[in-house]
Amino acid sequence: MLENRLQTLQKWMKTEDIAYTFVKGKANLFYLTGFRCEPHERLVSLLVFQESEPILVCPNMEKDLVRQSGWNYHIIGYSDNENPWELLSHYFASLSLQGTKIAIEKGLLSVARSEQLQNLSPALDFISCEDELMNLRLIKSKDELAILREAAKLADYGVEVGIHALATGRTEMDVLALIEYELKRKGIAEMSFGTLVLSGEQSANPHGKPSMKQIRHGEFVLFDLGVVLEGYCSDITRTVAFGQLTEEQRAIYDTVLSAQLKTLDICKAGTILGDLDLKARSIITSAGYGDYFPHRIGHGLGTEVHELPSLNETNQDYLKVGMTFTIEPGIYVPGLGGVRIEDDVLITTEGYECLTTYPKELQIIT
Amino acid sequence: MLENRLQTLQKWMKTEDIAYTFVKGKANLFYLTGFRCEPHERLVSLLVFQESEPILVCPNMEKDLVRQSGWNYHIIGYSDNENPWELLSHYFASLSLQGTKIAIEKGLLSVARSEQLQNLSPALDFISCEDELMNLRLIKSKDELAILREAAKLADYGVEVGIHALATGRTEMDVLALIEYELKRKGIAEMSFGTLVLSGEQSANPHGKPSMKQIRHGEFVLFDLGVVLEGYCSDITRTVAFGQLTEEQRAIYDTVLSAQLKTLDICKAGTILGDLDLKARSIITSAGYGDYFPHRIGHGLGTEVHELPSLNETNQDYLKVGMTFTIEPGIYVPGLGGVRIEDDVLITTEGYECLTTYPKELQIIT
Repeated sequence: MLENRLQTLQKWMKTEDIAYTFVKGKANLFYLTGFRCEPHERLVSLLVFQESEPILVCPNMEKDLVRQSGWNYHIIGYSDNENPWELLSHYFASLSLQGTKIAIEKGLLSVARSEQLQNLSPALDFISCEDELMNLRLIKSKDELAILREAAKLADYGVEVGIHALATGRTEMDVLALIEYELKRKGIAEMSFGTLVLSGEQSANPHGKPSMKQIRHGEFVLFDLGVVLEGYCSDITRTVAFGQLTEEQRAIYDTVLSAQLKTLDICKAGTILGDLDLKARSIITSAGYGDYFPHRIGHGLGTEVHELPSLNETNQDYLKVGMTFTIEPGIYVPGLGGVRIEDDVLITTEGYECLTTYPKELQIIT
Repeated sequence: MLENRLQTLQKWMKTEDIAYTFVKGKANLFYLTGFRCEPHERLVSLLVFQESEPILVCPNMEKDLVRQSGWNYHIIGYSDNENPWELLSHYFASLSLQGTKIAIEKGLLSVARSEQLQNLSPALDFISCEDELMNLRLIKSKDELAILREAAKLADYGVEVGIHALATGRTEMDVLALIEYELKRKGIAEMSFGTLVLSGEQSANPHGKPSMKQIRHGEFVLFDLGVVLEGYCSDITRTVAFGQLTEEQRAIYDTVLSAQLKTLDICKAGTILGDLDLKARSIITSAGYGDYFPHRIGHGLGTEVHELPSLNETNQDYLKVGMTFTIEPGIYVPGLGGVRIEDDVLITTEGYECLTTYPKELQIIT
C-alpha cells in the first residue's frame, strides 16, 4: 500500500523533473509512511527521491514507533543535541540527485524550513506538491473506507451517549466529559477536534465553546464531534430539543433537516461540488434564514478532518466515486439558538452512502 | 495588557524599520489579541503596523468570539466565499506604510502565505519576529502566573484521579478516560497534549501511546498530562508502582527522583540553562543509566506547552526571574519500564517554586 503510494509520487516527480519531495504535513506523512505523530517543534519529515530509497527523519526516541508503524525504508534519527539538517547535509553529499526542483507542501512548510532546504540544495527551485498529495488522498481505498466506517460508528455512539446524558442540572461540560469518557474507554485516544456540546443561545455560534452552562428546558442542544481511528477522522453533528420547542425553533429544525436531505439527494458521481452548497443555501434562503447560514455546506474528510474537496459554492470540480466528505447545513439565530445536522458521506457507484447513521428526526428529550 | 504588548512590538518595529508584522501562530495571536482559536485551513491573522491601528483578519463567524475575547481594534471578517487576501489588498491600498520589511514567524508561517504577503507588498523584505515574540512571552506577569498556578493544580488533580483509579483489570485507556472525565467536568475543554497513561514495558517509550493494555502488578504506571486553562498550559509527569517492584525498578525510580531534586536545587536566576540538563544527566549517568535518558531535561511552558526556554545541554542562556519551564528527567529501560518525574517550575527572586505539587516519593499502589 505505502509502496504504491510512494511509486505514484515518484512517477509524478519524474514527469515534473523533481529531485526530491519533502513531506512534513501530519496527514501526508501518515499517508506515505504509516507513521502518525505530534512532533511539536522537532523535525519529522519524509524525503522521497526519484530513484534512491526514501528516508524518514525523526528524533531517535521515535524510531521504534516508526518501525512499528510499518516503515521499512531508511531512517535518519537524531538526538536533542544533534542538528538534523547537518545529518541530512552529510547524507545528501552521498547522493546524486536527478531533477531540478524540490517539491514541498507550500501551505504547510514553514519559511524557516524552506530556507533550510534551500541551503541543503541551493541549485533547486521550489514547486508545490500539495495538490498532488491531496489528490492521492482524495479517492479512498476499500481499506480506508473500512476504517472511516468504523470511525463514523464511533461518532454515532458519541452522539448517543451525549443524548442519553442530557438531564436537568447537567452542564455542557458534564455531557461532553461523559461522551469522551465512553469513547476513550473504547480505545479512542484522540478526537478529530474539540468536541462541541452547545445549548440554547450557545448553539447559535457555529464555532462556540462548550461551557459550564447548565442545559435548560426549551433549548436546542447541539453535538459536534468525531474520533480519530487508526489515522482516519469522523465528524458528526446532531441537534436535539431538551424539552418542548417553540414553533419557530421547530421551523428552523425542519428547514435544516430538509436542506440536509435534499442536498444528500444530489450526492452522486458527476454532481458539481458547488451545487451542493447552492442546493442547501436555496432551501434555507427560501425559508427566510439565508442570512443565518454563514458557512459552506461541507468539507472533505479522511486522514484530516478538513481536507479536499471543499464544498463551497464556487467549487466547479465534480463528485467522484470514493470521495468522502461532510454535508452539514446549519441555521444560527442569535438569541434563539442554532441547529446543524452533519453526516459523513461517501460517493458510491450507486449514488451515496452515509457513514454516520444516527437518526436525524427531531428528538425531544424530556 | 494587550495594549502594552502591542506597544512593545511596535517599538521594536520602529527600531528595525518594519512596515508591518504578520502574526499567525496560535500562541502569539492569543498573546497579542486575547483570541484563541483553531482556524483549520482558514486565515486568522494579526497585522500590526508602526502607527496605524492593528487589524485581525478572521472568518465572519469568529467575529463575535473575537470581540468577546477582548479585541477592541479593527477586524476584517470574510465569508467562506470571499478571499481574505483580496480584502487585505483593498485595505492596504488605503494605508501609507512606513518601513522596508515584513516581520513574520519564519518557523510557523507557510511558504504559501509568505508568497501571499509578498504579493500584498512586493517592495518589502522578510525578517523574522519569532525571537521578539518569544522573548515578549518568556517572562510571565503576575496575572499569567496566577493562571499557570491554577493550570498546574488541575494537572496535580489529574494525576490524583489517575492514581486512585488504578485497579486490577483496568486498561490504560480506562484510567486515561477517567482522568479527562473529571477534568472536563471542572470545565477544562482542552488538554495541553494527548494524555499519557503508560504501564509496564509501554512506559519505557518516552513518547509511547496509551492502549487497551491492562495494568498488571509489578509494573510502573506513568502519567503525563496537562490542561489548557484560559490559554495557559500545565504539564506534569508522575510514575507510581502498581504492586511491588524489583530492586532494579526501585533503583531506577530513586535515580530519577534524585536527578529531579538535585536539578531543582540549582534552579535560580543566573544558572546557565544547559547546566540543568548536564546536572540531571551526570546523576543518571553515574547510576549507569546514561544511555536510557534520551531527551532534554525540560522545556519552557506558557501559552504553548513547548516554548522557550529549551533546556538542552548546549543552551548557554541563563535563568531569569519569571521564567516558567519543566524539569523532567527520565530513565527508560526497554523491556523493564520507564520512570519520568516532571514538575512545572517558576524562577522567583528567592530561587524557584514548583507550580505542580503532587508528591514525588515512590507510591506503591496495592
